[in-house]
Amino acid sequence: MKLFDRQNFIHQLSIDCVIFGYADLVLKVLVSRVNITPAVWTLPGGFIRQDESIDLAARRILEERTGLTDIYLEQYHVFGEPNRINHEIFEGLLTLKEKWLDMGIPDESSLHWLASRFVSIGYYALVDINKVFPRKTELDESADWYAVTDLPGMIMDHNLMVDRALETLRRNLDEKLIGFNLLPETFTMRELQELYEAVYNKPFARNNFQKKILDLNVLERLEKKFTGAANKAPYLYRFNR
Amino acid sequence: MKLFDRQNFIHQLSIDCVIFGYADLVLKVLVSRVNITPAVWTLPGGFIRQDESIDLAARRILEERTGLTDIYLEQYHVFGEPNRINHEIFEGLLTLKEKWLDMGIPDESSLHWLASRFVSIGYYALVDINKVFPRKTELDESADWYAVTDLPGMIMDHNLMVDRALETLRRNLDEKLIGFNLLPETFTMRELQELYEAVYNKPFARNNFQKKILDLNVLERLEKKFTGAANKAPYLYRFNR
Repeated sequence: MKLFDRQNFIHQLSIDCVIFGYADLVLKVLVSRVNITPAVWTLPGGFIRQDESIDLAARRILEERTGLTDIYLEQYHVFGEPNRINHEIFEGLLTLKEKWLDMGIPDESSLHWLASRFVSIGYYALVDINKVFPRKTELDESADWYAVTDLPGMIMDHNLMVDRALETLRRNLDEKLIGFNLLPETFTMRELQELYEAVYNKPFARNNFQKKILDLNVLERLEKKFTGAANKAPYLYRFNR
Repeated sequence: MKLFDRQNFIHQLSIDCVIFGYADLVLKVLVSRVNITPAVWTLPGGFIRQDESIDLAARRILEERTGLTDIYLEQYHVFGEPNRINHEIFEGLLTLKEKWLDMGIPDESSLHWLASRFVSIGYYALVDINKVFPRKTELDESADWYAVTDLPGMIMDHNLMVDRALETLRRNLDEKLIGFNLLPETFTMRELQELYEAVYNKPFARNNFQKKILDLNVLERLEKKFTGAANKAPYLYRFNR
């Protein structure tokens, strides 16, 4: 099914995904650059098929963009202001007539539904960035990781969507122990602390942090990390599901 | 605008409200009985006008049902399984042809949009039950308070909607200090504890509860409650916003 096969989708309802990854001590978000002129940036998103649940639609969209099927994923907020109309992409697509065939767009009328108001269900996802190879859709020029503190200006309310997702991630990091989804399977205590510092954008005291995390009783201690200097090597941990 | 003026609403998207009230030591939910045969019970709900935000739509629906304009209200979950189709109410309305004029239904074709799949945005609201006089819409036979532990079987996933709203209320009761919205302006410590016990459906130890609440530093202590026996009278408190 093609993106613009409008009969198969619920109209005026979309899904947008804030996909968080973590690398080089920085919390990052996957952002698409859309292949129209002038360029615009958006969160990865899509529509809901008439025969699929919204959660499965979100998983399908994420798989299309990251190749991953087993991702931590959660609804967090619905964005429903009446001015949520994607004029920029609609106008941009109108100018791409020579590419419509490749993009699965049969004619102009098949684009009109995109110029309506859309209510969008926001999902956020946490991925191990080393396992993700961002994929483009027919619409994208590129899909890249940006630091959450240095995002491009995106269409409509997409920057606000990231702000709200980050608030939710911070609120849930302790309560639901979801931060481990952003790390490789094994990590040192220091690496875990650096992740928390990147998410909260503030430093934590080392001893307090270590005590708080160990008291949660969710980490399994493994062998020491091989560093070449055995006596100073830190322990590796694994999340004990 | 009438309920069935379908051109003015976003199709396939609805709002359903879990309106919590508290009385006689019991947490209650407002439930409508729909005026069709056989009878069905539903949460108060409605649709979103093309020109209004989803949050304003929820406030409008709540005002229509409770008369209240200044209500604690929060989105909590979107329900989006593909089988969410309201066959019961659609079939019921088809049999009410002689009442269509009164209900603002011009003809059968104006009902067809109701027989589609609907994604529903769940909101929960907290009200002072003494200020609410439940109102019926054209569709309702009655609107009444039911104990959350003794709800009638409702259409589609409406009972699940209450379960999810109650989970959210429990999670937020401490963190966001929202329980006070369920009480009159002044209350005794015992009354506050009874509310918490009704929401969590379990007893709390009196001394621990009192200490925990006072430590939050959000209560203002007022005069003693007049009971006729002054020396035993408990203090009244007010939430200090």
